[in-house]
Amino acid sequence: MDARVIFNLGGWSAQRLERVEQALSDWVVADAPAGLGEAMRYAVLDGGKRLRPLLVLAASEAVDGNPRAALRAGCAVELIHAYSLVHDDMPCMDNDILRRGKPTVHVKFGQAQALLAGDALQALAFELLTPDGTDVPPAVQASLCRLLARAAGHAGMAGGQAIDLAAVGRALGESELREMHRRKTGALLQGSVMMGAACGSTDEAAQAALGRYGAAVGLAFQVVDDILDVTADSATLGKTAGKDAAQDKPTYVSLLGLERSRAFSRELLAQARQALAESGLADTLALQALAMMVVNRDN
Amino acid sequence: MDARVIFNLGGWSAQRLERVEQALSDWVVADAPAGLGEAMRYAVLDGGKRLRPLLVLAASEAVDGNPRAALRAGCAVELIHAYSLVHDDMPCMDNDILRRGKPTVHVKFGQAQALLAGDALQALAFELLTPDGTDVPPAVQASLCRLLARAAGHAGMAGGQAIDLAAVGRALGESELREMHRRKTGALLQGSVMMGAACGSTDEAAQAALGRYGAAVGLAFQVVDDILDVTADSATLGKTAGKDAAQDKPTYVSLLGLERSRAFSRELLAQARQALAESGLADTLALQALAMMVVNRDN
Repeated sequence: MDARVIFNLGGWSAQRLERVEQALSDWVVADAPAGLGEAMRYAVLDGGKRLRPLLVLAASEAVDGNPRAALRAGCAVELIHAYSLVHDDMPCMDNDILRRGKPTVHVKFGQAQALLAGDALQALAFELLTPDGTDVPPAVQASLCRLLARAAGHAGMAGGQAIDLAAVGRALGESELREMHRRKTGALLQGSVMMGAACGSTDEAAQAALGRYGAAVGLAFQVVDDILDVTADSATLGKTAGKDAAQDKPTYVSLLGLERSRAFSRELLAQARQALAESGLADTLALQALAMMVVNRDN
Repeated sequence: MDARVIFNLGGWSAQRLERVEQALSDWVVADAPAGLGEAMRYAVLDGGKRLRPLLVLAASEAVDGNPRAALRAGCAVELIHAYSLVHDDMPCMDNDILRRGKPTVHVKFGQAQALLAGDALQALAFELLTPDGTDVPPAVQASLCRLLARAAGHAGMAGGQAIDLAAVGRALGESELREMHRRKTGALLQGSVMMGAACGSTDEAAQAALGRYGAAVGLAFQVVDDILDVTADSATLGKTAGKDAAQDKPTYVSLLGLERSRAFSRELLAQARQALAESGLADTLALQALAMMVVNRDN
């Protein structure tokens, strides 16, 4: 019997999600002034699959990492993800009014507060990574900040969004589409894995293998997102379905068609599992299960 | 003869500004995709007094700090300042079209690109603080990230902007106004001084004294800003003059009147000098001269 089959992802995730939700609620301040804290909490709490924190925690556990560092890293990545959604939903970007089944932040709090809440969440991410005291060694703090800054910035998420912005209504080839997604969503997902790895110590081969795993999972996430944009309804997604097609955005489905997109997502899953097999790490069951969840999810 | 009188701030600054401008030009990437790099460079280069980097470098020199760390810290603070201006100028915030005598970033590149450029500049600030290699020890990297994140976030700049947003058209008392400015501009200016100090080693007394110096200079900066908004013209300021009064924003001038505001700025300068005298640091001439410049500037 295959060991992967008996791993209980639901049980594993539930325990970790409880810690993540509690930590986010503790750390995303309610006392920020003039309604800012309220907008920040609204943007972060009660929503989302928390895929990125789970990837951080799974990677950290695979390398026997410092759990306090990993919890901070997982929350920090989630804050970057949350801020990007707040800004992305604004009228000057995607102009979306529904997110995770709720009015978007700018609809609820106004555009100016949404802009500030996003900015403050990005700063808070780096604040979480650099606590006073000895919970997280300074060298780990520095590594985590380095990985997060690179994943979030021009070479990662923000750069991918700029490519996305310039691509509306324009035909992209597969390599351009891949480059856009590698930055836009892939960099932060891969960054989550690498930040988890930075909470422990790994040899270079394991680190490279985890990098390949993160890249495959990051791309698979986007391919499946493109598939769901076509096949799921808004209620299941918790956001507006069919948006990409309506805005004439290039997607994997528009490029490859539905069936080849599905085959591609399965191929990426195989690549992710292969990378884990090559990592030499003893326990990668949670990472394997998360990759399967990314490919097989329905929202 | 008073040693302070013969310190040549112009010569001191010119040398440091050359390094800062070169580093910013090297580090604010031109190759970020899809016009993002262009918008980021436009937001940062060829403009501004670079007061924050000069405070970082002066504080670092006063504590015999690591010059490579200080240069990175100075540029990182300037990126945070630049991003805040880009976002602050956007239509949903101050809706300003002129900055440093040039069209604002959203006027030139569009709102979506301005939003992304600001976001990417904040990430880049933390990237500059966390280089690979041994130029900056990991413990210094972590301290610098901690100080910058706190100064930029909800407890600092972003929080102050939220108070500012909520205060338009409303009467503030002096303590509220002071609290707003302590966060909005004071936190990043004080943070600059503390980041400079973190590039070297200081005893607690010196660190506390530099904190008092930074707080006084930070508040003085804002008081003088309020004075100049009333007394200077747009051409001298390089931005729209009389804006605060037109928007019915609370300012020190509206609260205290022009003469008492001027007296307050001189009192803050005296506090800043007093703090330096108490710091026990051997050479604080550049910090003294910068405080004088902040109070006596005409733009």
